[in-house]
Amino acid sequence: MPKIGVLLSGCGVFDGAEIHESVFTLLALNQKGAEIVCCAPDVELDVIDHLTKEPAGEKRNVLTESARIARGDIRDVATVHVDELDALILPGGFGAAKNLSDFATKGADCTVNIPVEQLVGDMLEARKPVGAICIAPGTLAKVAASRGVKATLTIGNDAGTAQAINALGCEHEDRCVTEIAVDESNRVVSTPAYMLGQGPAEVYEGIRKLVDRVLEMC
Amino acid sequence: MPKIGVLLSGCGVFDGAEIHESVFTLLALNQKGAEIVCCAPDVELDVIDHLTKEPAGEKRNVLTESARIARGDIRDVATVHVDELDALILPGGFGAAKNLSDFATKGADCTVNIPVEQLVGDMLEARKPVGAICIAPGTLAKVAASRGVKATLTIGNDAGTAQAINALGCEHEDRCVTEIAVDESNRVVSTPAYMLGQGPAEVYEGIRKLVDRVLEMC
Repeated sequence: MPKIGVLLSGCGVFDGAEIHESVFTLLALNQKGAEIVCCAPDVELDVIDHLTKEPAGEKRNVLTESARIARGDIRDVATVHVDELDALILPGGFGAAKNLSDFATKGADCTVNIPVEQLVGDMLEARKPVGAICIAPGTLAKVAASRGVKATLTIGNDAGTAQAINALGCEHEDRCVTEIAVDESNRVVSTPAYMLGQGPAEVYEGIRKLVDRVLEMC
Repeated sequence: MPKIGVLLSGCGVFDGAEIHESVFTLLALNQKGAEIVCCAPDVELDVIDHLTKEPAGEKRNVLTESARIARGDIRDVATVHVDELDALILPGGFGAAKNLSDFATKGADCTVNIPVEQLVGDMLEARKPVGAICIAPGTLAKVAASRGVKATLTIGNDAGTAQAINALGCEHEDRCVTEIAVDESNRVVSTPAYMLGQGPAEVYEGIRKLVDRVLEMC
């Protein structure tokens, strides 16, 4: 039974991990019998009020909030070692580009959280499959660049984000919400999810394909 | 296209709506093309730290936190009228028995939040289908009792909870996680979900059956 890390970044699309994308990742993994290791960085996030979509002027902890999605079964990403995992999947949401790194504001010039860089980079170097959903390929591209990996990735078709990924030496390919981009040589799979998705059903379809492909690569 | 209300109670199994159950409800509804109206009461909740599972000594707003699951597309339940909806579904999580009512601590003697009682009770009286997941049948039983409806319900097989439901004049039937209890005459459907579920896949199976049955009743 493959052991798959799921790297969360909070709990809520506007300041954390996108909840639907995260849950669909867990569902598709559980449907195939994979063992799941949820993890998240032990850092603060700036709360966005999801009703008003305005900053709430409040901080919360990314690991503690991610534990909501994981029903309490989660570890600090700093304690997760590459040798434990057969693959790693990064759901999206603004947290993947604000809490795992600052890709959302700095694009190609972003900095990645150190334990996140360590685990994601070590997975790439070990040539273990990595899946990245929605905006998470931005953070993944930065790690790939720092490890000399020129991955092919999709975030859908947003020109600015695609440009930032290309500026990091990766290659962006347009995809629709129900499709995946597969980089066989670097063992990287990505899907646009809510970068393009209009509702849960089509987002789930793309994520299920991503999970299936990641598990096939294990 | 039927218009289905989804009554949330926060965001997280220990102090709000169970996230997986809520997302699976949205997924199954969207897969069948239903229009979704997410709603939640505008009341405070007592935060449980989902990492330590201990009280955090903090309050949050149920509507604002529920908005995380709904990606911001949510309304105060007090503004939702029975005439708008073809059916209503209540996902579980402790929020369904702590924020929609105080069933978790008071059982059959619980009090239901007034706008929640209004909408759920009006749906029952209008004989529009109501689905209740996990522990939510506890709150539903209290509303049913106050409206003179003797519904047949399941929360799985927990004896104490079943007894509280029976004490309210409803009838509890044991079910396993992938099954539903269907009360044809009162148009009520329920499933145990994480009252019994060991993982997302089997919980999704029960919820998908519940959603399908609710939509067939519309």
